[in-house]
Amino acid sequence: MNIITGGVCAAKGFLANGVHCGIRKNRTKRDLALIYSETPASAAAVYTTNLVKGAPLAVTKKHIANGVAQAIICNSGNANTCNANGAEIAETTCALLADKLGIAADDIVVASTGVIGQPMSIEPFEAGIPSLVDGLTSSGSELAAEGIMTTDTIKKEVAVEFELGGKTCRIGGIAKGSGMIHPNMATMLVFITTDAAISPKMLQKALSNDITNTFNMLSIDGDTSTNDMVVVLANGAAGNEEITEDGADFTEFMKALNTVTVHLCRTIAGDGEGATKLLECKVSGAGELSTAKTVAKSVICSSLLKAAMFGADANWGRVLCAIGYSGAPVDVTKVGVSFRSAKGTIEVCRDGAGVDFSEERAKDILLEAEIEILVTLGDGEFSATAWGCDLTYDYVKINGDYRT
Amino acid sequence: MNIITGGVCAAKGFLANGVHCGIRKNRTKRDLALIYSETPASAAAVYTTNLVKGAPLAVTKKHIANGVAQAIICNSGNANTCNANGAEIAETTCALLADKLGIAADDIVVASTGVIGQPMSIEPFEAGIPSLVDGLTSSGSELAAEGIMTTDTIKKEVAVEFELGGKTCRIGGIAKGSGMIHPNMATMLVFITTDAAISPKMLQKALSNDITNTFNMLSIDGDTSTNDMVVVLANGAAGNEEITEDGADFTEFMKALNTVTVHLCRTIAGDGEGATKLLECKVSGAGELSTAKTVAKSVICSSLLKAAMFGADANWGRVLCAIGYSGAPVDVTKVGVSFRSAKGTIEVCRDGAGVDFSEERAKDILLEAEIEILVTLGDGEFSATAWGCDLTYDYVKINGDYRT
Repeated sequence: MNIITGGVCAAKGFLANGVHCGIRKNRTKRDLALIYSETPASAAAVYTTNLVKGAPLAVTKKHIANGVAQAIICNSGNANTCNANGAEIAETTCALLADKLGIAADDIVVASTGVIGQPMSIEPFEAGIPSLVDGLTSSGSELAAEGIMTTDTIKKEVAVEFELGGKTCRIGGIAKGSGMIHPNMATMLVFITTDAAISPKMLQKALSNDITNTFNMLSIDGDTSTNDMVVVLANGAAGNEEITEDGADFTEFMKALNTVTVHLCRTIAGDGEGATKLLECKVSGAGELSTAKTVAKSVICSSLLKAAMFGADANWGRVLCAIGYSGAPVDVTKVGVSFRSAKGTIEVCRDGAGVDFSEERAKDILLEAEIEILVTLGDGEFSATAWGCDLTYDYVKINGDYRT
Repeated sequence: MNIITGGVCAAKGFLANGVHCGIRKNRTKRDLALIYSETPASAAAVYTTNLVKGAPLAVTKKHIANGVAQAIICNSGNANTCNANGAEIAETTCALLADKLGIAADDIVVASTGVIGQPMSIEPFEAGIPSLVDGLTSSGSELAAEGIMTTDTIKKEVAVEFELGGKTCRIGGIAKGSGMIHPNMATMLVFITTDAAISPKMLQKALSNDITNTFNMLSIDGDTSTNDMVVVLANGAAGNEEITEDGADFTEFMKALNTVTVHLCRTIAGDGEGATKLLECKVSGAGELSTAKTVAKSVICSSLLKAAMFGADANWGRVLCAIGYSGAPVDVTKVGVSFRSAKGTIEVCRDGAGVDFSEERAKDILLEAEIEILVTLGDGEFSATAWGCDLTYDYVKINGDYRT
């Protein structure tokens, strides 16, 4: 499997674009993105578990109930959530786009991201959709990735190439996500395209399985957004025999999908609001998978540990503390903790108690931009990984005055 | 009921003291506190729910299993947790103190607070206990309150006077707590004394009931400490008829206790690590008590909302978002939100959608140091309050390098 360029346009038959249509005041920032498949595609999606849901989610759910979609439109700058006319805006957006593209409105996925509870008007969409569609190209992934950014500091895209039954397939994605990200739901916005042929049912199965180990193991700040969704479109342009059941091809597809989603997870975590470090907590030796996951997520969500990592402080007691309040059944006297980065590995806790270690060496390791927190539970064979980031002054700054 | 001075020494027959014994490097900071009842007292306690528990907790649990205690000793600067000799240190501390006071070691409550997983020695206790005991006075509450402080910026004490069967009684407490504080357990260290006569069983009942609406509704950072406990000693010196069952006296005692605990909760929240504001979320109109509590806690725990409050930004969408992911059954279309402070009240959301409001006026209200977030659910008669604080640069600063 090779990592390739092209993002959501790496797969055959997908075009994309991103423009500024006027939802965001800053004219240099794109605020409307479009991904288009030249033919109708299998579609699968997962959504936020927040009871408060953005208006576009209900429209999208309805549109892909039949497992088919051909385009994804997404604006940034306004969440279209908790406002009076949200459903109308989302519906009209789809109608305008369907008209311009010459496809059915119910083959369109619609999404929004930005501030909650702000008035929203259809006018920027009316103004922007013509040029958005006219500018669709097979090299437009970056423009679309820019169009969905909010507090993101880098655009997030990736693609891989793999083989199914002798045919070369591609799967690629773009994502946005920086704050209001917390596990146990489809977090942030992720749009994935593939030219592999796969039935809607198996596509949904692949996505639903995958997110339990990827986007549901990601937390920036413990706040579950109202607008999250992960959508995959598969148009079959690669010409492989359609995947309609479990088997070697499905396994290979799952692997390719997982490469894309893990990459996007790591990119989102590393670009968490204000983050200076990507944190990866790898738990092994758990008696149950659920224990491994619960512990990994609890560690990655600890504000105290996140702040310690910002300070490159090997304060492992906070790792033990987070394990202890996770609610998972853990024998504390068997717990081990090490920190690892490109600079090496240092053991700091064994059998639930501290070991002598060089603070200087620990500092050196923790000053790197990617830190692994390795937890061993000594209780079985299960393992899990969770992703997060450090807690910094800039997180507070960004969120202390987000709306202005 | 009157608020009075004297803290844990307000109740008759209680003495206290605090000294520097050498656990903390800074000689100007007291690090060892003692509260002493001249006669054996009814004792009740609640503890952290963290699986990782400080060594003193097990010793204390054992010592007050019979419902009686006469002294509380607590050090700051080291949590005596996740180290090799924790139980031995806690046991020896009690033995040394018992010897000096001439009481039984198993009438002593022992507690520790500070960094987890650090080596600890008995020597500072040996050095400090003699002067700690010799200096016991009926005006020593402040010294004891100072002795248990860690990152606290103010000492926390309060006392009230009330009547039981014509006898004047007093109940007072000291507390420490600033970070690693999260609801659903006995959070931080709180020591309460009263001269009311009450049986150990009813004292435990009063405490266990009270914390469900007070310390379990308090969050600074979502991190549940390993060392938390709330202890109450009741020595009966007020001469009231002993409370041994439910009734008017018990109700009156509960009211007095609640006045003390709510005061300490508010003080702890307002002095949260790095906090510039006390946040109080008052939820009303819930269909169930559990819904009111879940919603109030979810709002108070939202990092995004906490950062917005730091910036005096009326970003009410974050309140809705936190309600939505709380897990409580809420009809979003009935939710209302207002912000209130000494400067007035402003409604920002009605029936789940924004209302027009003056941003200038909202800013003016939110610039105050005590902010109420008023949430109405429109679904019933239950209400609940939760306490927290804003998320600031200083929280990150304090916790980015706590150990140095």
